[in-house]
Amino acid sequence: MIQITLPDKSVKEFSEAVNGYEIAKSISPRLAKDVLSVSVNGQVWDLTREISEDANVKLYTWEDREGKETFWHSSAHLMAEAIEFFYPGTKFGIGPTVDTGFYYDVDLPEGKQLSEKELQKIEQKMLELARQKNDIVRSEISKEDALEMFKQKDDELKLELISELEDGTISLYNQGNFTDLCRGPHLPNTSYIKAIKLTSIAGAYWRGDEHNKMLTRVYGVTFPKQKMLQEYLEMVEEAKKRDHRKVGKEMELFGFSEAVGQGLPLWLPKGTQLRMQLEDFLKKVQKKYDYDQVMTPHIGDVKLYKTSGHYEKYGKDSFQPISTPAEGEEYLLKPMNCPHHCEIYKWKPRSYKDLPIRMAEFGTVYRYEMSGELHGLTRVRGFTQDDAHIFCRPDQLKDEFKKVIDIIFIIFKALDFENYTAQISLRDPDNPAKYIGSKENWDKAEQAIIEACEEKGLNTITELGEAAFYGPKLDFMIKDALGRSWQLGTIQVDYNLPERFQLEYIGADDNRHRPVMIHRAPFGSMERFVAVLIEHTAGKFPLWLTPEQAVVLPISEKYNDYAKKVSNFLNISDIRTVVDDRNEKIGRKIRDNELKRIPYLLIVGEKEAETETVSVRRQGEGDKGTMKNSEFADFIVKEVRDQLSGLYN
Amino acid sequence: MIQITLPDKSVKEFSEAVNGYEIAKSISPRLAKDVLSVSVNGQVWDLTREISEDANVKLYTWEDREGKETFWHSSAHLMAEAIEFFYPGTKFGIGPTVDTGFYYDVDLPEGKQLSEKELQKIEQKMLELARQKNDIVRSEISKEDALEMFKQKDDELKLELISELEDGTISLYNQGNFTDLCRGPHLPNTSYIKAIKLTSIAGAYWRGDEHNKMLTRVYGVTFPKQKMLQEYLEMVEEAKKRDHRKVGKEMELFGFSEAVGQGLPLWLPKGTQLRMQLEDFLKKVQKKYDYDQVMTPHIGDVKLYKTSGHYEKYGKDSFQPISTPAEGEEYLLKPMNCPHHCEIYKWKPRSYKDLPIRMAEFGTVYRYEMSGELHGLTRVRGFTQDDAHIFCRPDQLKDEFKKVIDIIFIIFKALDFENYTAQISLRDPDNPAKYIGSKENWDKAEQAIIEACEEKGLNTITELGEAAFYGPKLDFMIKDALGRSWQLGTIQVDYNLPERFQLEYIGADDNRHRPVMIHRAPFGSMERFVAVLIEHTAGKFPLWLTPEQAVVLPISEKYNDYAKKVSNFLNISDIRTVVDDRNEKIGRKIRDNELKRIPYLLIVGEKEAETETVSVRRQGEGDKGTMKNSEFADFIVKEVRDQLSGLYN
Repeated sequence: MIQITLPDKSVKEFSEAVNGYEIAKSISPRLAKDVLSVSVNGQVWDLTREISEDANVKLYTWEDREGKETFWHSSAHLMAEAIEFFYPGTKFGIGPTVDTGFYYDVDLPEGKQLSEKELQKIEQKMLELARQKNDIVRSEISKEDALEMFKQKDDELKLELISELEDGTISLYNQGNFTDLCRGPHLPNTSYIKAIKLTSIAGAYWRGDEHNKMLTRVYGVTFPKQKMLQEYLEMVEEAKKRDHRKVGKEMELFGFSEAVGQGLPLWLPKGTQLRMQLEDFLKKVQKKYDYDQVMTPHIGDVKLYKTSGHYEKYGKDSFQPISTPAEGEEYLLKPMNCPHHCEIYKWKPRSYKDLPIRMAEFGTVYRYEMSGELHGLTRVRGFTQDDAHIFCRPDQLKDEFKKVIDIIFIIFKALDFENYTAQISLRDPDNPAKYIGSKENWDKAEQAIIEACEEKGLNTITELGEAAFYGPKLDFMIKDALGRSWQLGTIQVDYNLPERFQLEYIGADDNRHRPVMIHRAPFGSMERFVAVLIEHTAGKFPLWLTPEQAVVLPISEKYNDYAKKVSNFLNISDIRTVVDDRNEKIGRKIRDNELKRIPYLLIVGEKEAETETVSVRRQGEGDKGTMKNSEFADFIVKEVRDQLSGLYN
Repeated sequence: MIQITLPDKSVKEFSEAVNGYEIAKSISPRLAKDVLSVSVNGQVWDLTREISEDANVKLYTWEDREGKETFWHSSAHLMAEAIEFFYPGTKFGIGPTVDTGFYYDVDLPEGKQLSEKELQKIEQKMLELARQKNDIVRSEISKEDALEMFKQKDDELKLELISELEDGTISLYNQGNFTDLCRGPHLPNTSYIKAIKLTSIAGAYWRGDEHNKMLTRVYGVTFPKQKMLQEYLEMVEEAKKRDHRKVGKEMELFGFSEAVGQGLPLWLPKGTQLRMQLEDFLKKVQKKYDYDQVMTPHIGDVKLYKTSGHYEKYGKDSFQPISTPAEGEEYLLKPMNCPHHCEIYKWKPRSYKDLPIRMAEFGTVYRYEMSGELHGLTRVRGFTQDDAHIFCRPDQLKDEFKKVIDIIFIIFKALDFENYTAQISLRDPDNPAKYIGSKENWDKAEQAIIEACEEKGLNTITELGEAAFYGPKLDFMIKDALGRSWQLGTIQVDYNLPERFQLEYIGADDNRHRPVMIHRAPFGSMERFVAVLIEHTAGKFPLWLTPEQAVVLPISEKYNDYAKKVSNFLNISDIRTVVDDRNEKIGRKIRDNELKRIPYLLIVGEKEAETETVSVRRQGEGDKGTMKNSEFADFIVKEVRDQLSGLYN
């Protein structure tokens, strides 16, 4: 008798060895159809692999990350088989899954290259092979035999990989005419794969090292249903339209200049307006929660970062130290704001009554990224964190952590992010050397996060090994309007910096104690957050936030003066208003300004000028009728107030 | 007949050679008493020096900088005579005037040192020598004779100075037993000097070079009336109390940390509040004047600063370039914001209709200063300019310049700086090589400034040779409450950067044209401005600006809760309010909070808690009676509104 324990603790008994597929079938025919892989005592296995002892089992479908990974991993093998069919002698590097789909790094035979046309041919071949419903079969051989096998194929890439593996058995997977060295798991057969799109080709150095050979990286994505591919392609199309680099340019939010340097954004007037609006909003929320704003320089003595440990972490790979001409000091562009805040904490003696001290700064930090890694506002070399550090007593930690969670929810609410997941990142228990600080402090910090999340009723997932090197953390991932996930706000507990900076407070017992720190950034960085916001809203920001709330459109140049009068009146009422006084037809002006994503278009002509009114059009909603200027001002002020109601007041 | 033309163009005729003193006497006995030196065709002369040809003449008294300089220069000689009396064999380096008084660098005989006691002895001797009414007599000798003379005195310092002079006659001045090499001019005799204070002693390397001998620098100040010295000493005493470093610490506005680095201020919460208030105020004023806020990174590619010319100016003496680990770029901490703003200008094509573009940024820049030069917030290594650059057509230049003058006056008004002078700084006509850019552009720029000032009716002084290397400028000097002058706001015209960055706009004629730039910073820098403001107000900032506007003082712990309720209510009404809930007597609380310079003290006890009222004390004015909480809120909001009324709305 074999006992299989499912995640809901229910137990199924089987009289003989069983596999994942059979377990699914025993639960429901539907599940048998959907299941893609199975975890057995925490390890993900092929559905067809035999379970011959009692085990804890979890079944994965397309809805699970593990299910998708299995699906795409098999798809990578299928693609490799198709490529080998057309290009015999191709050598295969690695073929992992990525966020959406998979890639394979291949070394094509001398003189062969892939283009769009070849990708379509390969796609067709993959579909043909998939329909053949070829079984994907796992086998195990010794390392010695594996080396011999790939030596015959003259595949030096695989030989290099195998030679680095530990001695013992090595797993191979075969389907049709293709066999690959692979840890698995895989689908039972190729017919699961119903829809295929090879998306792009790129060059990639073998193992990411520029001294190695340049391979061809082929990206693809596959689905169990044709309809899902269709939806995916539409989402990609929509994402292209919303690409923050494109929208940011159209809306004149930000730009880059080769002369200033790559990855160093220039915030244009409208982008600056947007960013200031976000910063002011967060300042107000933080004021409600008794934060103190501070300002600190963008450099610090190298010794400061040796004390903090950041030099060890960022020093040699980031912007190099700044020397001074005469006095032998060395400064570093700050990669983080915390050391400066620790120095402010140390500026005067602190008592237990002074804590918690909540120190906030929109602090611009600089970290070097390779130019190939840079991407719009999401991956830059200088960015502004909406940073704060809370210095508190250990007994205040959990409450403070919960208050930070509240602030993050206020922001999600103000910006209509309805869909989030929260990830608790803890140590990798197998790799304690990766982390600085004592085990005792780590235990305490991890416990505080877990309890705070429980008490706030947060829906969390927990990942081992994802903690920062100086402490555990809670990260918020939001889903944007296209269903894509973005990592945004982060909260980290830190017992280590207070130790390194010898921070102290005098307790009620008149003795010296060490405070604990929370690092937090609800937006993450202004740059990344604005990028996500652009893609989430396609540039149609909430009214309270958008850089230009209204544009006045005179129907002819005769009404330009009245248009300016309206605009002045609204601006004095704190409604951000511009005038489009170009000598263009009104239809053209309406179209152009809708493209600029300005929420309210105010059309003015003779009737409006005589009656001190505006004809109001709401972006995407059309005509809203004629209003007195003061009536419109009240109307829009109320709309803004309603959007932010209760969030910081 | 000798014709003497006075500044008011009136002409006086003399039958024979005449001197400055005699001219003054011919005007009034009062002026004869007050006159200290005279300018003859633009050169400042001794009063007793003979004028033997027609000349333009201006008489200087204590009210003129030139008059004071003559006075203090003679005082330096008098001090030297007294020092030589006590320490024969002393060698004398240089003895110039400074802003207030004079110093002399002296090389005392082996083993001799000066202390407070010796300074008093020297002061007494100076007074004694002054009363002797010794004539100060100019004579001229050849360079050869001068060398011989100081060789006999074994004075290698003077010998070094003389040997560097051009051949020809050299002037000497003698009074009593003291003769010094000196260009002059000097007072007629020592009796003008009625009041003397030797203020301090410092070490100074000969000619400022650390490889040379260390001399003793003795500072002093003298006056024509005893009463003036008395007033000066009182002012110094008051200035010490107001020293922004002292007040900044007491009020917890800013601090420094050795670990972060010298000259890199940390803005503490209250200082940040103050600074944000100033920045928000200027942002509102700038919004009224149609400025656009932008934000740019704190570094830029070294090439950017080679283009701008800043690398040549700051490069080798400032913070050194930042290299990158992998890709061979070199970045510089930005010493100025203008290159970044030029790049924003270039971000898209501009038309004549787009101009003027007014681009503002609170931009933090970094410039290295020797540690010995650093001083509180007035001389730092990193500071935030309230910077803006106006890109305009040449025909818009003068109007734009005038609008900037308006903004500066708004700020002076908001901060009660009633006393200002404006200095127009033009090229040094004798040293054209010091400046970058064409003569034609310089001529145009200088003209625009001069005309704008005239049209605004500004009271200006004009200084040749004080222009920036890239353009002429207008600087505003304010007098603080102690009568001291501070350089604050600056406006500069620049035809050069647009040239270097090849900035263009398409004109109405469809051709490419070059815009002209105005650089301006009304505050100058936030750091320096806050320092001046602290010393001007002794930390008693205007109500609208002060970090904490009100403090609630419960008369015992029983009323702490009510105090917090009042504070919450006022904070929601945007009145920055704190609570002093320490367990201290109410008298002590009042004293402590007056020391903290909080304008309103709100005392609450049983009666107040029952009636929802506060007992109001105004700093420096005392009891203001009891008010309903809402009444007090209205009262203080109105006071703030009245202070700022009409300034940005």
